[in-house]
Amino acid sequence: MPEMKGFMPPRSPEGRASIVPPPPWHYSGDVLTIEYRTDPARVAALLPAPLEPADDDPGAVAVVFADWQSCSDTFEELLDPVRAQYREAFVVVRCAFRGELYSRCVYIWVDKDFALARGWHQGYPKKLGSIWMTHPVTVGKAGPRLEPGGRFGATLSAGDRRLIEARFTITGPSDSNGFVNALPMLHSRYFPSIESGAAPSMDELVTMKSYDWEASPAWKGTAELVLHDSPTEELTAIAPLELIGAYYRSVAASWREGTMLRSNRGDRGDGT
Amino acid sequence: MPEMKGFMPPRSPEGRASIVPPPPWHYSGDVLTIEYRTDPARVAALLPAPLEPADDDPGAVAVVFADWQSCSDTFEELLDPVRAQYREAFVVVRCAFRGELYSRCVYIWVDKDFALARGWHQGYPKKLGSIWMTHPVTVGKAGPRLEPGGRFGATLSAGDRRLIEARFTITGPSDSNGFVNALPMLHSRYFPSIESGAAPSMDELVTMKSYDWEASPAWKGTAELVLHDSPTEELTAIAPLELIGAYYRSVAASWREGTMLRSNRGDRGDGT
Amino acid sequence: MPEMKGFMPPRSPEGRASIVPPPPWHYSGDVLTIEYRTDPARVAALLPAPLEPADDDPGAVAVVFADWQSCSDTFEELLDPVRAQYREAFVVVRCAFRGELYSRCVYIWVDKDFALARGWHQGYPKKLGSIWMTHPVTVGKAGPRLEPGGRFGATLSAGDRRLIEARFTITGPSDSNGFVNALPMLHSRYFPSIESGAAPSMDELVTMKSYDWEASPAWKGTAELVLHDSPTEELTAIAPLELIGAYYRSVAASWREGTMLRSNRGDRGDGT
Amino acid sequence: MPEMKGFMPPRSPEGRASIVPPPPWHYSGDVLTIEYRTDPARVAALLPAPLEPADDDPGAVAVVFADWQSCSDTFEELLDPVRAQYREAFVVVRCAFRGELYSRCVYIWVDKDFALARGWHQGYPKKLGSIWMTHPVTVGKAGPRLEPGGRFGATLSAGDRRLIEARFTITGPSDSNGFVNALPMLHSRYFPSIESGAAPSMDELVTMKSYDWEASPAWKGTAELVLHDSPTEELTAIAPLELIGAYYRSVAASWREGTMLRSNRGDRGDGT
Repeated sequence: MPEMKGFMPPRSPEGRASIVPPPPWHYSGDVLTIEYRTDPARVAALLPAPLEPADDDPGAVAVVFADWQSCSDTFEELLDPVRAQYREAFVVVRCAFRGELYSRCVYIWVDKDFALARGWHQGYPKKLGSIWMTHPVTVGKAGPRLEPGGRFGATLSAGDRRLIEARFTITGPSDSNGFVNALPMLHSRYFPSIESGAAPSMDELVTMKSYDWEASPAWKGTAELVLHDSPTEELTAIAPLELIGAYYRSVAASWREGTMLRSNRGDRGDGT
Repeated sequence: MPEMKGFMPPRSPEGRASIVPPPPWHYSGDVLTIEYRTDPARVAALLPAPLEPADDDPGAVAVVFADWQSCSDTFEELLDPVRAQYREAFVVVRCAFRGELYSRCVYIWVDKDFALARGWHQGYPKKLGSIWMTHPVTVGKAGPRLEPGGRFGATLSAGDRRLIEARFTITGPSDSNGFVNALPMLHSRYFPSIESGAAPSMDELVTMKSYDWEASPAWKGTAELVLHDSPTEELTAIAPLELIGAYYRSVAASWREGTMLRSNRGDRGDGT
Repeated sequence: MPEMKGFMPPRSPEGRASIVPPPPWHYSGDVLTIEYRTDPARVAALLPAPLEPADDDPGAVAVVFADWQSCSDTFEELLDPVRAQYREAFVVVRCAFRGELYSRCVYIWVDKDFALARGWHQGYPKKLGSIWMTHPVTVGKAGPRLEPGGRFGATLSAGDRRLIEARFTITGPSDSNGFVNALPMLHSRYFPSIESGAAPSMDELVTMKSYDWEASPAWKGTAELVLHDSPTEELTAIAPLELIGAYYRSVAASWREGTMLRSNRGDRGDGT
Repeated sequence: MPEMKGFMPPRSPEGRASIVPPPPWHYSGDVLTIEYRTDPARVAALLPAPLEPADDDPGAVAVVFADWQSCSDTFEELLDPVRAQYREAFVVVRCAFRGELYSRCVYIWVDKDFALARGWHQGYPKKLGSIWMTHPVTVGKAGPRLEPGGRFGATLSAGDRRLIEARFTITGPSDSNGFVNALPMLHSRYFPSIESGAAPSMDELVTMKSYDWEASPAWKGTAELVLHDSPTEELTAIAPLELIGAYYRSVAASWREGTMLRSNRGDRGDGT
């Protein structure tokens, strides 16, 4: 009797039709991170029980723009780049769970379906958006150089509405790339039941690490950040009160799997 | 302690950010259905155990193109139509489970993220694609009239490759709209574990019915259908050997929930 | 020696590569028109000399949303609808020239290249945008019926910014479809010289009429209209002060050619 | 009396609405060039009289993919990158005119309207397409390094059909970047009359040079190139018979204006 193949739906006889090829997945890209403080109560309101706010700087938020190339372990997507390239914008906060501090992505938009599905697997709550981010250049005038004074813009829109506008100007090299998105991720994987009122079909807390991590030297700078309203977003609830820092660098990593910390169908490990 | 709201991720304090609003969902659209026979072994190869092929006409396949408007129970999406309109193309076969005959969608593409996520909830294995379908017109020459001789084209592409090309010419009114996509749906809801080698986090068989179903009179006609190859599709494995019929009509329905028939975490009901 | 064929560039040996096939062009579509008054000085500021404002109601403006299907005289685009369907949003004012009153499109956005090029040929100053417009339905709840109480939304965005938001509610049948976009068009066809400071390579005033015009009965209604700002638009300069009327109907026409009234290379006809 | 401002339509009171800001325009980007030989008669068929084929290697063709950032002299587009970034794919041949040898772009696709209009100004016969091109990376595995063995893919599609597929593998540094696209451009600027049967409103031969030209060191390599058929293209008429060479580098230039060599309204300069 047939066994369907494929990492995610659609599962098929050969497994080629899956919305995303199986892990490991390899990523290389350029990343702009802007960290700011909002009202800590607004961050706390984004953390489902039993997650708790970070004790230190509980209103810290990172908005990240990234321009990625990614591929499976066959590397074949790199030669058909419509299947490899995507851009994303996302919002990260920190939280505590069982005494450990984590990073947590609360909102995220990408521009390809394979990236959306891959994110859902990892607990990134992805939706589609249109993301633009200035490229640094090495020749000519139509772009910033990776050096002090280099200026970048980045925008997100979704549903034909502009949601985030960011600007970044390099002031110098940086030892840090920020602290909000620097911890292991703590994500929810949630899927409602097909039956009204029933418990979710999937309701997990997971954590994950990437491997073969590599990064270019980082740049820091000044930034401006504006979050706009939309009937289908709650971004303005976490509007910036104060900027913390802004960073730019190239990053690469591979990802194979995460760890399930807790499931609504029975905990694993040290209990809660 | 905060409870996150929202039907699907991203879950948020107010629940507005969810990729799709909660059901019920209401649909109105135009639907072109082309039914054909392929090698029955190719249909059987698309049915995971314990599903079995239909005894009667086991190689029957339906390719369906649809141009939808949909909304939640607030109806507000209808006034911001970027959130209401989408197009889709999908492939349906029939299968037997526990002695009942079902329709089953094996491949499907849509052009909006809310439709993709809604499909995943319903077990439709949606990916993104670009779908085009001739509109009938009531004035002028730039389109077919809904009458004998009216000619329609429909195409699907994904990953910048054309995957399906269909043509349809109305020959007359029809009592039927076909039989392949006419049964209750039997879908798999499948989500892999975040941990390599672990059992899936969700692996369910579900069935569902819509309600408040309404349809215009149907038209039947002649059709041509070509399926193209792609490194990320297996469509040509179910290439048409013989056309059965082709139909066009407007359809509406509402959908609230389905029924879980079986889960990998323990069966429900009459066992298997 | 080879003669290049093709109505517009790229011109090629067979003429198939042209961005748009040769006229006549046939159109069928649905059209939402919202008429309002703005400061008459702002309309006058949009009229290049020697055009003059209309004497009567000189601040009248029409914003029009349209969902079109169009084709060449081969009609083959209708069977490959990615080449036939497009949506547009445009702004029309009235003007006087040589004692005649005309309609004049001052801003317009479409979502396909063939429509953009065709517009440039006709003097419509087209740019690309994303246009959405509620469809009426005949079955179900996911859309308005063409009857009193039917509610429609329409939006334009470009450059990932929302530019126009409109709403329309049918109040009853209408004898009129408005007056601002009801006259022969008076358009400029303008193309700068490749040489800085030289006279334009094309600078014409043209007028045009379509033929085989057909329309459904019209509906009138109430409307809301908001114009948003953008660094690359001047829409808010003509913000509505007072709504005049709003109309919806299906329209069809064919178009073959226009008439050149005046060229910067020497006038034709009765002089200026 | 009002004077309309703006480099191209739509011309407006402030000049901000023009589809493209005025020159000079600055460009920085990555360029993949693949040169091959086709049947020289097929190249000759693409050259309108009085252009003549190159004496030497008359069947040489270059297919070029480019990923650009561009801006006006205000540089403001670089901070709103949806207005600065675009990709293009184009086909170049050589031709002789009045005893001089030129490069000539015969087909070209871009993915933004400002790039399309700017191309029309320069005589590039631009249409819209979807262009993808592998990025080189400096960290990680998800992309080629700019070094021998680095592999790139590039694709063009338009009208939801894939038109060009290219692959490139770096073999080493290169002194050359090819010869087909290395000469001053000789372009036609052509716009039909609004009146059937009348002489074109614009029919010019122009040439142009950029300035402040800068380039990175170039890489050469091996390549594969496939051109696909479409009802609206004539690419397969110039299918490759033999590859000549393939090159990759970063390029920058500024462009202000060109020179009109000949107009259908009367020649300028040294006659023909």
